[in-house]
Order: sequence, then structure tokens, then C-alpha cells
Amino acid sequence: MVILGIDPGTNVMGYGVINSADNKIKCLAVGVLDIHNVEDKYLKLKMIFDRVSGLCKSFKPDELAIEAQFYEKNAQSMLKLGRAQGVAIAAAVNNNVKVFEYEPRKIKLAVTGYGNASKDQVARMLIGMLNLQEVPDKFDATDALAAAVCHHYQCKNPLTKLKSGNSWAAFIAENPSRVIK
Amino acid sequence: MVILGIDPGTNVMGYGVINSADNKIKCLAVGVLDIHNVEDKYLKLKMIFDRVSGLCKSFKPDELAIEAQFYEKNAQSMLKLGRAQGVAIAAAVNNNVKVFEYEPRKIKLAVTGYGNASKDQVARMLIGMLNLQEVPDKFDATDALAAAVCHHYQCKNPLTKLKSGNSWAAFIAENPSRVIK
Repeated sequence: MVILGIDPGTNVMGYGVINSADNKIKCLAVGVLDIHNVEDKYLKLKMIFDRVSGLCKSFKPDELAIEAQFYEKNAQSMLKLGRAQGVAIAAAVNNNVKVFEYEPRKIKLAVTGYGNASKDQVARMLIGMLNLQEVPDKFDATDALAAAVCHHYQCKNPLTKLKSGNSWAAFIAENPSRVIK
Repeated sequence: MVILGIDPGTNVMGYGVINSADNKIKCLAVGVLDIHNVEDKYLKLKMIFDRVSGLCKSFKPDELAIEAQFYEKNAQSMLKLGRAQGVAIAAAVNNNVKVFEYEPRKIKLAVTGYGNASKDQVARMLIGMLNLQEVPDKFDATDALAAAVCHHYQCKNPLTKLKSGNSWAAFIAENPSRVIK
């Protein structure tokens, strides 16, 4: 299965494409669309749409994993973020790609085992995990790749993998039979 | 010029198409896409994308006028609204339609002369103005049509038409030469 990961934003959109077969994942592409210098906000949205459409046509992903931040500083930022997310999702569904979204915390948890990991920790983990030769210079790229990797894990083990935090309390709550009394 | 008006929403999307030539406007289409029963949120977005794309292909609008509400009750509503707006905008720009957005207050002001007009007042004004034979049963449809009509006025008189409120104070401020001393 080919998974396209997207970290949408109105200034920089990160993307990563992986091939996921059994337990093996391979990075097919990773990069960013940098639109922070584009002044026209509709042109920004068009560029997001075109890039996601292009990635869908080039790599024919089966599924899209999108990093979906649900809270932002203010209503205006939220609206802008929603627009960027909506455009990326529209481009995917328009190419018959199924959409899955993950909160940043879940993505970090899936990749590093720690929901509050830094972007740098996520990047370093991915570099090792995927044996990346070229290291992306923007965390948006590795964040997008992380969304794809998170979706790979979620597909492998949909019930338990990302259900809760990484605390012992959560583990015990989810696995009562493994507690030695 | 053909203008497509859209009032985007995650439950109902209104649309209206007008032909605008000199001072005359004619309604070509008005209606809604009712998706409040669709549970899959991505399917909702796909349906918005498909309908706006379809309207672009059928009526070949030159420009899109979108009702853009900038504030919502909470961040989640804002994000959902942003997604719906983003998808409609993406469908338009993907069909080379230029996008313009207007706040609800400006649209009401342009159509009724009163920025706080009710949806019913907007609808009744449009029915008379466009000589509508069939009256839409949802205000989302007339709100969308109103966005298109607002854009028509804005194009006719871009500098002064929608600059301010409808108070005498605003009128006097904008037209000092018309004050009899």
C-alpha cells in the first residue's frame, strides 16, 4: 500500500510518500511546498491543490494520512488552517484516495513512542527508521512523513496502537491481564 | 459576466448563478446541496467539491463570490467552516474561476441597503430584484445568490459601494460635497 502523508499549512505544506508492505516501510518521496512568499491567498490554495493532485497522480497513493491540528491560537488561524486542510483533502478525494487524519500527539506517539516528542526527535527517528539518505531541512517534511508512518502502524494494529497516552496507567488500563498480582 | 455565488457550510451549501451585463442581472440557477444526512465528513467535502466543479463546468462562471463568515462559535466550527470554504475555493480555482469573498454584513448591505437585514429580507429583496419564479425554500440558496449579486455591485462600483455602513454619518463622511451648509 502506498500512503501519502501531508502536513498542511498556509505557509509551508510538508509531504511524504511511503510504501508499506507487511512490516516494511520505504520512503518514496519527501519534501515541502514552500508558499510563504506567495501573497495571493487563493493562489496559495491552488498551489496546495495542484501539488497534492500531482503527488496523487505520480505515486498513486491508496490512502492519505493528514496531520490535523484541531486547535490554533485564534479563530482566524483556525479558519486558514481549515482551508489548507480542506484543499488538500479535496485534492485527495478527487483522486479517489481515502482520507485519514491524526492529531500531532498521536503521530509523535506512533513514531517515537512519546506523545510530546520534539519535531527534531521525530525527524531523527524517521531518518533511522527509513534510512533516509537526504535529510529534509524543514520539519514540515518529516512531520508529513511521520503522519504516513503513523497511518502504517495504525493499519497494522488498528485497535490498540494509538488509543491512548504512553503512560503506565494507560497501558495497565488497556491490558489488565498483564498485571502480575 | 457570469458570477457563481456560494454560501458554504458542512450541512447545507447554497449556490446561485447570475449573468451580469451592464446594469442588468439575471438568475441562471439557484439551489442547495443538502448534505446534513451524510455522515462521512470526507464524503461531504467530496460532494461540495463535485457540486462546485459541476456548476463551474455547466455555467462557466468568470468569478466566484463566496460568503465568508470569519467568526464562529468555537474553534471546531471554525475549522469545519474553513474546510468547506477551502474545498469550494479549490474547486473554483481548479476551473480557473477567480475568487472573491464577502462578509455576510457586506452582502446584506449590498442587497438590501442594510447590513443587519434578516435572511428573509434578503430573500424577498432578491425575489423582486431577479423576478424569481420559484422561491427557494432554504435561505442558504438566497444567501448564495445574494453573494453573487453583491459581487455584481462591487464590480460596477468597486470604490464606494460597500466601503462602509449605511448610516448618515458614513454617507456624509464619504460625500462631503453633498452636504448643504
